[in-house]
Amino acid sequence: MTQPPGIVVTGASGRMGRMLIETVTASDRARLTGAVERSGHDWIGRDLGTCLGGPETGVIVTDDAAAAFAGAQAALDFTAPSATVAFARAAAETGCAHVIGTTGFGKEDLSAIAGSAKKTVIVRAGNMSLGVNLLTMLTRKVAEALDEDFDIEIVESHHNRKVDAPSGTALMLGEAAAAGRGVALDDVADRGRDGITGARKRGDIGFAAIRGGGIVGEHDVIFAGPGERIVLRHIADDRGLFARGALRAALWAHGKAPGEYDMLDVLGLG
Amino acid sequence: MTQPPGIVVTGASGRMGRMLIETVTASDRARLTGAVERSGHDWIGRDLGTCLGGPETGVIVTDDAAAAFAGAQAALDFTAPSATVAFARAAAETGCAHVIGTTGFGKEDLSAIAGSAKKTVIVRAGNMSLGVNLLTMLTRKVAEALDEDFDIEIVESHHNRKVDAPSGTALMLGEAAAAGRGVALDDVADRGRDGITGARKRGDIGFAAIRGGGIVGEHDVIFAGPGERIVLRHIADDRGLFARGALRAALWAHGKAPGEYDMLDVLGLG
Amino acid sequence: MTQPPGIVVTGASGRMGRMLIETVTASDRARLTGAVERSGHDWIGRDLGTCLGGPETGVIVTDDAAAAFAGAQAALDFTAPSATVAFARAAAETGCAHVIGTTGFGKEDLSAIAGSAKKTVIVRAGNMSLGVNLLTMLTRKVAEALDEDFDIEIVESHHNRKVDAPSGTALMLGEAAAAGRGVALDDVADRGRDGITGARKRGDIGFAAIRGGGIVGEHDVIFAGPGERIVLRHIADDRGLFARGALRAALWAHGKAPGEYDMLDVLGLG
Amino acid sequence: MTQPPGIVVTGASGRMGRMLIETVTASDRARLTGAVERSGHDWIGRDLGTCLGGPETGVIVTDDAAAAFAGAQAALDFTAPSATVAFARAAAETGCAHVIGTTGFGKEDLSAIAGSAKKTVIVRAGNMSLGVNLLTMLTRKVAEALDEDFDIEIVESHHNRKVDAPSGTALMLGEAAAAGRGVALDDVADRGRDGITGARKRGDIGFAAIRGGGIVGEHDVIFAGPGERIVLRHIADDRGLFARGALRAALWAHGKAPGEYDMLDVLGLG
Repeated sequence: MTQPPGIVVTGASGRMGRMLIETVTASDRARLTGAVERSGHDWIGRDLGTCLGGPETGVIVTDDAAAAFAGAQAALDFTAPSATVAFARAAAETGCAHVIGTTGFGKEDLSAIAGSAKKTVIVRAGNMSLGVNLLTMLTRKVAEALDEDFDIEIVESHHNRKVDAPSGTALMLGEAAAAGRGVALDDVADRGRDGITGARKRGDIGFAAIRGGGIVGEHDVIFAGPGERIVLRHIADDRGLFARGALRAALWAHGKAPGEYDMLDVLGLG
Repeated sequence: MTQPPGIVVTGASGRMGRMLIETVTASDRARLTGAVERSGHDWIGRDLGTCLGGPETGVIVTDDAAAAFAGAQAALDFTAPSATVAFARAAAETGCAHVIGTTGFGKEDLSAIAGSAKKTVIVRAGNMSLGVNLLTMLTRKVAEALDEDFDIEIVESHHNRKVDAPSGTALMLGEAAAAGRGVALDDVADRGRDGITGARKRGDIGFAAIRGGGIVGEHDVIFAGPGERIVLRHIADDRGLFARGALRAALWAHGKAPGEYDMLDVLGLG
Repeated sequence: MTQPPGIVVTGASGRMGRMLIETVTASDRARLTGAVERSGHDWIGRDLGTCLGGPETGVIVTDDAAAAFAGAQAALDFTAPSATVAFARAAAETGCAHVIGTTGFGKEDLSAIAGSAKKTVIVRAGNMSLGVNLLTMLTRKVAEALDEDFDIEIVESHHNRKVDAPSGTALMLGEAAAAGRGVALDDVADRGRDGITGARKRGDIGFAAIRGGGIVGEHDVIFAGPGERIVLRHIADDRGLFARGALRAALWAHGKAPGEYDMLDVLGLG
Repeated sequence: MTQPPGIVVTGASGRMGRMLIETVTASDRARLTGAVERSGHDWIGRDLGTCLGGPETGVIVTDDAAAAFAGAQAALDFTAPSATVAFARAAAETGCAHVIGTTGFGKEDLSAIAGSAKKTVIVRAGNMSLGVNLLTMLTRKVAEALDEDFDIEIVESHHNRKVDAPSGTALMLGEAAAAGRGVALDDVADRGRDGITGARKRGDIGFAAIRGGGIVGEHDVIFAGPGERIVLRHIADDRGLFARGALRAALWAHGKAPGEYDMLDVLGLG
């Protein structure tokens, strides 16, 4: 009789850490075996369940990543670049896979992570949602298949606290569309359309941003041709998405050769 | 045994004129009894059906509007301001109702039309689509009912040859939303959102424009509140819409007192 | 300096009770002053914050509703019929408003509630979402304004655990559409369309149900006419909706005459 | 100086024939060089332009397909099985490509067409829309990439005169989804959902049909997973779609080896 694989969560007390813990705990394909916080945090040495205001779980929060990683299948890590580089080193030492949702790395950080990836499996992605990664692939393929008779428009909707437009994911989709056409996005992006714009320029990729209420995140890639439209749409229904994507990456990592992977590898579309 | 009411179409050879003719001919609630073109047009004196490349219809194209209007229930008119002013005069003389889809009037034109409206029924609207007029009403009412916890966004999609953004109809919807809230649209309109915009300003009304392919016209008025959205959407499925709205106005006009009306009156929402 | 009005939540330990507590606590227009549970519940006599696994709040959970209601502006109550009838009595005694989201009442329950409503404000609604109530109103009005040239279709999407189709809310929308047309829904409902159905019957109201993933709830009322569509759409973005609707009702109740109200009154559309 | 390739249209007087003629005439990448009708039709021997109620075009309608095909790049053919078999033979004799949108072939017809395809290029597809063919490909690929945590739902909307549900295209998309999962559609199709259905069965592919007004045709393939949805959507904006797809196939055929192809080949996705 085998148990499901053990998973460790780093940054356990943070908003994303809590969501990762909830996701692993709710899954019957994985088992939470460790929770890591930074040295000095007041959760260190206490039972994770109690810290979260619930019943005891038997998992004691620790600041010793290597000890927590030893024997685990994977660590889920959405923290900060410097912490993540240290976690990658601990993962390499223990053979634990390392799933990285952290963003904002410098070149040296990436080089350090690449070093660790020689000894263990590392999955790293700016967006861990399965759906968004798949949509990016599809966008590129459809942009390759259709010519410029099809106008490409990327429309995204987010909550009213978002401070930038278009969203990073919308730009990522735009890059994919431009790559599919063999052009540079900067040369064809049409953003903030307003006023007497003239007719739409053939080959442009347009962006529109909708902001309101508590919309989690929606992205449409529209290919509007003569008489028909294809729309590739992603809707995020809850904020647990990224946690689920990370867990899927962790389960996928089992038995893979050391190396650095992304979500397209996890999805089998790499 | 009564016949359906007689309808005259002005500007018969133009794109909109042809669509009006098609719409009246296809209806079993109306009967095409006249077709008007400008003096000197080569259709004058010929059978309308033949001019259109089909079988004879018995309707002879004329440049004498008053003769065509006499005895008809209504004239459908999407031409140009100066022609429309003259047609209004002919309508007043004959008692024929005058349905005006023409736009771009100056003050003197409007004053002349108002004069004619003392003697006959005139229905005039910038957008003859039933749905868009209804949507405008609903937008105002919903904006009244909901407070600023609901962010208002207006999103429109049109074909790639459209030269202005947002569309005139989107702006009309924005005016209705602003009126519902008791504010001036100019004070709250947020157009062409792009870059580091900061969080959305409470009370703003946002606009986004999508352009591509042959999209006839779609408008969304989004009320995005905490945890929920109401969307009022209009989709134009074919370009015959305006013609149908005009015919409905013509049938409605029967038995009404002389005066100037709009589509909200026709819909019973005025 | 005045404090925001005090609010009591009944059934505090339940899923809906917790959401109500969260909503009131997060609002700066209201203040949680009481939490009620049934006699014998192990939260009785303990601090509510501690029970929920967080810091102390100073609110002690009680089984004495009248004591909790005294001095409060309103009680928010999504429990069960028999409990709600007793809470209505306590509300009447103390002058506290009573916002009822409980469903499934028998005639005697409703009669008892009506008795309490002689002495205090009671707001009762099967669906506390502002948006859905507003959509119901709009559906009726649009169905009145448009004739049977516009085919009405009601489409709803919910998560994959839902066991009935169409949803109760979809049927409520269908009732509103039928009322707007002056027909009985049972005579015109077209459900479960499949196979060789023949052309759509004029005047029918169609229903379609989509089930998948974790969709919170979406409803579309489509009016599809010749060449155009109006769509009235509601999207629930999170499950906190009903709690927010209840709080809005509670704040609205202030200063109203005793009586039984529904969400349309709260929205000013009654 | 080279001219654009010559194109022949069969069944020139029919609704689809007229649309093909309009499409070829409007394109600057092709030139209409022939129009074929059945022997005895009253257009035979007359100028095509005049027959259509417009100016002369120099193309004389003929019943001699082989003469019309000789020297042309391709024939566009949406007629009936027996006529199409004869046209395929004429295409084989003359080396003209043959684009077939006709449906309803028996086995012998298909075998005859296969015979002709040994000598010329034949492109045959049940749906000539580029978008629908692309959507079918994408549906299969996404169904392969995602496991049964993603519920598949196929939703289609059509005008109120359509007599069957779901649409043939919806079923084609369902077949593609089932193929992607390695199951038979008949084993997993959930159609006409209504009443107390119980929770959705894992692995099912659901269908819903919306009917109203003049909707040309819309298809959504929804993959609804835990916390997110991917939607692949096709919208037909006008009925000229199929004609455009046929013309694209005709232009693609130039220089290809004899054989039978479908729209996936034309799109480069075969």
